[in-house]
Amino acid sequence: MIQRMIIHAYLLTMTDDQGGLIMDGAVAMEGNEIVAVGTTEQLQANYQAKEEIDARGKVVMPGLVDAHIHTSMALYRGVAQDMHHWLQKGVGPFFGNITTAEAVIGSRLNIVEGIKAGTTTFSDFDNPMNLIAENYRQAGVRARMTSTVNALPPTLHKLGVGELYPLDEGIEQTKLKEAVTLLEEWHGKENGRLTVMMGPQGPDMVSKEMLQEIKKLAQHYKTKIHMHVAQGDREINQVIKRYGVRTIPWLDEIGYLDQQLIAIHLTEAYDEEAALLANRGASMIHCPGSIGVIDGIVPPVMAFLDAGGTAGLGSDNAPGNNCNNIFNEMKAAAVYNKIKAKDPTVMTAYKVIRMATIEGAKAIGLDHETGSLEPGKKADMIIINMKEPNLSPVILKPVCNIIPNLVYSGRGHEVETVIVDGRKIMEHRKVLTLNEEKVVNEAQEAATKLAERVATLL
Amino acid sequence: MIQRMIIHAYLLTMTDDQGGLIMDGAVAMEGNEIVAVGTTEQLQANYQAKEEIDARGKVVMPGLVDAHIHTSMALYRGVAQDMHHWLQKGVGPFFGNITTAEAVIGSRLNIVEGIKAGTTTFSDFDNPMNLIAENYRQAGVRARMTSTVNALPPTLHKLGVGELYPLDEGIEQTKLKEAVTLLEEWHGKENGRLTVMMGPQGPDMVSKEMLQEIKKLAQHYKTKIHMHVAQGDREINQVIKRYGVRTIPWLDEIGYLDQQLIAIHLTEAYDEEAALLANRGASMIHCPGSIGVIDGIVPPVMAFLDAGGTAGLGSDNAPGNNCNNIFNEMKAAAVYNKIKAKDPTVMTAYKVIRMATIEGAKAIGLDHETGSLEPGKKADMIIINMKEPNLSPVILKPVCNIIPNLVYSGRGHEVETVIVDGRKIMEHRKVLTLNEEKVVNEAQEAATKLAERVATLL
Repeated sequence: MIQRMIIHAYLLTMTDDQGGLIMDGAVAMEGNEIVAVGTTEQLQANYQAKEEIDARGKVVMPGLVDAHIHTSMALYRGVAQDMHHWLQKGVGPFFGNITTAEAVIGSRLNIVEGIKAGTTTFSDFDNPMNLIAENYRQAGVRARMTSTVNALPPTLHKLGVGELYPLDEGIEQTKLKEAVTLLEEWHGKENGRLTVMMGPQGPDMVSKEMLQEIKKLAQHYKTKIHMHVAQGDREINQVIKRYGVRTIPWLDEIGYLDQQLIAIHLTEAYDEEAALLANRGASMIHCPGSIGVIDGIVPPVMAFLDAGGTAGLGSDNAPGNNCNNIFNEMKAAAVYNKIKAKDPTVMTAYKVIRMATIEGAKAIGLDHETGSLEPGKKADMIIINMKEPNLSPVILKPVCNIIPNLVYSGRGHEVETVIVDGRKIMEHRKVLTLNEEKVVNEAQEAATKLAERVATLL
Repeated sequence: MIQRMIIHAYLLTMTDDQGGLIMDGAVAMEGNEIVAVGTTEQLQANYQAKEEIDARGKVVMPGLVDAHIHTSMALYRGVAQDMHHWLQKGVGPFFGNITTAEAVIGSRLNIVEGIKAGTTTFSDFDNPMNLIAENYRQAGVRARMTSTVNALPPTLHKLGVGELYPLDEGIEQTKLKEAVTLLEEWHGKENGRLTVMMGPQGPDMVSKEMLQEIKKLAQHYKTKIHMHVAQGDREINQVIKRYGVRTIPWLDEIGYLDQQLIAIHLTEAYDEEAALLANRGASMIHCPGSIGVIDGIVPPVMAFLDAGGTAGLGSDNAPGNNCNNIFNEMKAAAVYNKIKAKDPTVMTAYKVIRMATIEGAKAIGLDHETGSLEPGKKADMIIINMKEPNLSPVILKPVCNIIPNLVYSGRGHEVETVIVDGRKIMEHRKVLTLNEEKVVNEAQEAATKLAERVATLL
């Protein structure tokens, strides 16, 4: 008797370029691992399960990977739209004045939002990550946590636009200590479900010395480096002012472009710069939704992929996107890139669903554990109701519409069940590990207080 | 005693450019009309209601207007993505081979999908509209129906790409008769909830004589003309081949550009052509989702609006979009146009939410009845749960995040209650007028048969 088997599903294993569809598919799991994948007939011949889930009319696929998210920022969702100088003038006052307790509350809201839209892996880049880590322990999702290191004083929004930021050595050293403590205390916790990376907020937001120190530490701890790169003309302007050269050539000079680097955004990177990153083995996280709203730009992810790079998708942050939902990012990645290329054949549904699963997992170094349904991998998967009107009907031939509809019509609420590390964390759309109503109410209360404080500062 | 009052809402009346927000707002209705709008305190001082709905923590706003939709096409949702020659090579075989019974079943699925995403007005352009009209009678939504007139044989997909289509006079005359019959039989039915317009499928898809005949009939019946205009290079190519000039100048020559015209798409219109339409008083329906997926193009809606035109939003069709959800169109309109302009300040949330409501109603000639919450208008409204994690928290100052979050994070499933013409047609997300499960199952069965037939043809 094994623990659980899901049968009669449209099973998307993500083991090939067409989604690895198995009709009348089944997956068997024991503990936190997948033990077998195949047709229902095959698996029923070999296994009996204590719990059998009939997924007729449903898709079962790997849980979605949100490869770049700032969960605390959910607390000020939607405060900075349709504007120029988003970071400094829109988000700055909130970002600079949120308390650690408020950040943890905001993070919890965002984790619930993600789970309800099928996200099972959160690559979170935030502070105070040592406290946010407790949210992840409780939520039961897979988390790849980075404690943001920067040297920025909380008064950034008071600077003139384009002025060189002051970099405060005391601040960056304090934040580095927090990042190292997080690594020491949390990496590998919860049976490996929680892992830690290193992360300078951006090449413009810490000193050169700090970038170099982090590189050494990341090598020592064998972790990846999660960093915003070429995230805006603002950043490139700062780097040119300090070092006389654009971000990506400068990072190449100081030895930062390699397989250890997860480069976020590349908003203002030239196509050749994106290709250079790919050639050096760095991965890229594409956040089309937030960069579309914040900057009206489609980053050069196609140039990056064409050069052979590995890219995932990220929902980034709620004051910019304004949702943290990988279904949104799949459609955005596909359509924004069609618009950029003026060509409907680029960035197909089949390509972006891989970015949301196995490619995203690979980009953050977790493809040995998650992102596809294969024996030996962790049991991270979602069950999607294809009888929701917007995903109906299912057509199999002459063309199969399952993946096109998940990408172009899926909105997240069709996800019924979420399993992470072998544990059901959502069932019948009820989150089992956190109290959704309480999480939402606490966030409302905290946001009202934060907004009142910010209002008095402006 | 009046019939119903909703109290304690974030009320978006849409009576000004900021959404007409009334904090702690209330709306009173009797029969199919709104009788009063104001604060809860004001309304409670003047009215007592048989039914009182407490909308604390919820938005109440006008129902959404889907100003261009082909509902029958839901039956082959998602069969033609990521390709060139979408109409002829992707959709053609399905479009040409669907039976009338199947079309009605597909339409029902799409209506349920729309209701569940807050659409209360459907401007449907389809065949067989005399039968689809029964769906609208039953569903209880407001419908503006157009029976598509074309002269196209069902073998369109067998032509070479770029070949001049044969226009069949017998077909166009038959379809014109259906359109006139629809008008005679259905215009003004259900106490005015169902109305009818005239609609050539496109300037390339009927003869010049038919366009002129329809213009006269529309004048006679005092209806608008709902027509695809400049919907693709395919169409412009056909018009140039037939008449030696591009679509919009040609329509101007034959007197088609005036307030009677609702021009759909304008995909391939030049900015100056879009401005000409606006100057002539024609309205425009912008369908960013479908045109983004199908063509990788952002139509010139900004040029049209800058010239003073009135524009609404449409979800178009499920094999192209692949969803029929005006929340999707709001975010798409905002972000695609930011990307096109490389400017995050254009097409604000405040502008697109008006296009989804009052401007859309005006574009299809229904703004005297729907699109805003004002005494004397029909009671068409939706109640949205702002405690869904992706719409939380609500912040009122220093910046109000309600409309930015509805537009950039709303996905449709947050709509709890739908009221049309004073009648509740959805409550607690259960559609009350149609049996959702039955509608979905019938569509699945019919789609399987249609797809099997199409497979044998290819």
